[in-house]
Amino acid sequence: MQNAVDLVEIWRGDLLESVHRGHAVVCDADGEIVQAWGDPAAVVYPRSSSKMLQALPLIESGAAEAYGLGDEQLALACASHQGSDIHSVKVGLWLNQLGLHDDDFRCGPQESRDIAVRNAMICAGEEPCQIHNNCSGKHTGFLTLTQHLKAGTEYHEIDHPVQVACKAAFEEVTQETSPLWGVDGCSAPNHACTMHGMARAMAFFASANDRSDTRSKAAARLTQAMATYPELVAGETRACTDLMRAMDHKVTIKTGAEGYFIAIIPAKKLGVALKIADGATRASEAAIAAILVKLGVLDAKHPATIERMTPQIKNWNGIVTGHMRPAAALR
Amino acid sequence: MQNAVDLVEIWRGDLLESVHRGHAVVCDADGEIVQAWGDPAAVVYPRSSSKMLQALPLIESGAAEAYGLGDEQLALACASHQGSDIHSVKVGLWLNQLGLHDDDFRCGPQESRDIAVRNAMICAGEEPCQIHNNCSGKHTGFLTLTQHLKAGTEYHEIDHPVQVACKAAFEEVTQETSPLWGVDGCSAPNHACTMHGMARAMAFFASANDRSDTRSKAAARLTQAMATYPELVAGETRACTDLMRAMDHKVTIKTGAEGYFIAIIPAKKLGVALKIADGATRASEAAIAAILVKLGVLDAKHPATIERMTPQIKNWNGIVTGHMRPAAALR
Repeated sequence: MQNAVDLVEIWRGDLLESVHRGHAVVCDADGEIVQAWGDPAAVVYPRSSSKMLQALPLIESGAAEAYGLGDEQLALACASHQGSDIHSVKVGLWLNQLGLHDDDFRCGPQESRDIAVRNAMICAGEEPCQIHNNCSGKHTGFLTLTQHLKAGTEYHEIDHPVQVACKAAFEEVTQETSPLWGVDGCSAPNHACTMHGMARAMAFFASANDRSDTRSKAAARLTQAMATYPELVAGETRACTDLMRAMDHKVTIKTGAEGYFIAIIPAKKLGVALKIADGATRASEAAIAAILVKLGVLDAKHPATIERMTPQIKNWNGIVTGHMRPAAALR
Repeated sequence: MQNAVDLVEIWRGDLLESVHRGHAVVCDADGEIVQAWGDPAAVVYPRSSSKMLQALPLIESGAAEAYGLGDEQLALACASHQGSDIHSVKVGLWLNQLGLHDDDFRCGPQESRDIAVRNAMICAGEEPCQIHNNCSGKHTGFLTLTQHLKAGTEYHEIDHPVQVACKAAFEEVTQETSPLWGVDGCSAPNHACTMHGMARAMAFFASANDRSDTRSKAAARLTQAMATYPELVAGETRACTDLMRAMDHKVTIKTGAEGYFIAIIPAKKLGVALKIADGATRASEAAIAAILVKLGVLDAKHPATIERMTPQIKNWNGIVTGHMRPAAALR
């Protein structure tokens, strides 16, 4: 986390109240760095920003075809959804198709982030289920691949065939040997790589339509599925959903815990990886929006951009007390 | 926010995943810096960490005596409470004593942070009131002073006699002319000062028992009231409450928004001011605990210390995935 640079500023009145630092890399299809902030060699867990890498084996293995998975299911496999009805119903149907149940998940139960769903469950005295976990789509993908491979039930363990395949895909596409892995919020392994490695991987996805190998076709399909169904990748009011819509479904973006964010820009064959050093989501959302504006693929004046990149900060009375904005390096 | 130094580390497995930087100053009763991290000259809003400064005029004016305020009410005047029943009931009784109602507040409505209260209100279809605002005790103090001064109803405005008195107290005790002010989350003015200035002010409170002037007596009483009633200053499960209890009510501490924290240590006549540059509360809690341990007033092995300073990080399944710890400078 050394050598991070200022990326996002929090102002209250005329005083800079807080600042977020970080690293970001933009790569082209050759894996070369086009632009960078901070340290491209910083080793970071991409967390949920790596879900499209974790979904590659689902397609490459033939499981997606064998189970007739559509683009909605592939988008859910790459999602950090908010447990709205649209998510739990679609994941539930997919789980039923596999003949499996909530108990077969290994992601753990998580309260829905959809306030209406959360409140209804609280008032009905219902406990959160694993299907409400933001990673339940990814885990249904894991379960699908597990069935296809006739592998054991503990699909989240590091030596399970599903995770072995995920690690191989991760290392091959980042073109790095991952130095270590950690246990993610959903209990699946998460492999670390450099900022450059992750941007290189995202550029592989962005340029996948140029190639016809199995992996590239899988990458192109996942990229397209996410951009086509942004409401499944996150949910209403969420940054990923709002910004993919604002870019007319032409750019694929994905948040990750602890301030990670990626972007895949097929029209320019560019990949972006971003990490806020302190882990703040408010800053990763602002910084990725600023980078997308700088790259000419997001309109700075779109309401969804303003809401994430240069929002007003309001207090309990609704009075504007300050604002957030990109730091000089991103303006 | 320049020249901040690493104060808190977030580890996942064997990798440093995120890091929080900041500034901190420890001052003695003469206002001299005993120890500092980062930039003592950094100008910052102390936010709710300045509530004991904002409560000085309530006592100095004679209002507290005229209205017969007890230590519980003074603790609430310095609180960022979580809107539990204990807070709303006691603030409500005080408000009734003034013959005023929820509409007389200017802090704005805020959902209770007490999950049981929040859920009960949601299920009953009740909207949050201004009395649930974490600052409603401070605002009842403002209303009391307003009545005592026979001043107008808009007590939160910068030129209202209450705020004029608060600014004077703030500048006199920090021994600085505040360069600017911002509107706080509760709509009251919040005056900026240097980290050194705020630590100097806290040392004034810590050494107040040595002096017999009106202001020092007011400072000593507020310090004692907060330490005596830590459950009123924040609430159950909150860092301020748990850590003041862990220090056997002998040290007064107070959080503020955007990563601020202060400590008042009468036994050593020391004042502490801390700001996490990125504004993260998880880091301000860990860093203030680490500083209190270093100063010998908090037991590193107390469960409340461990929970804030070196907590395990667990995922949705309850599996330990990492830990938080003070950075080298605070170990």
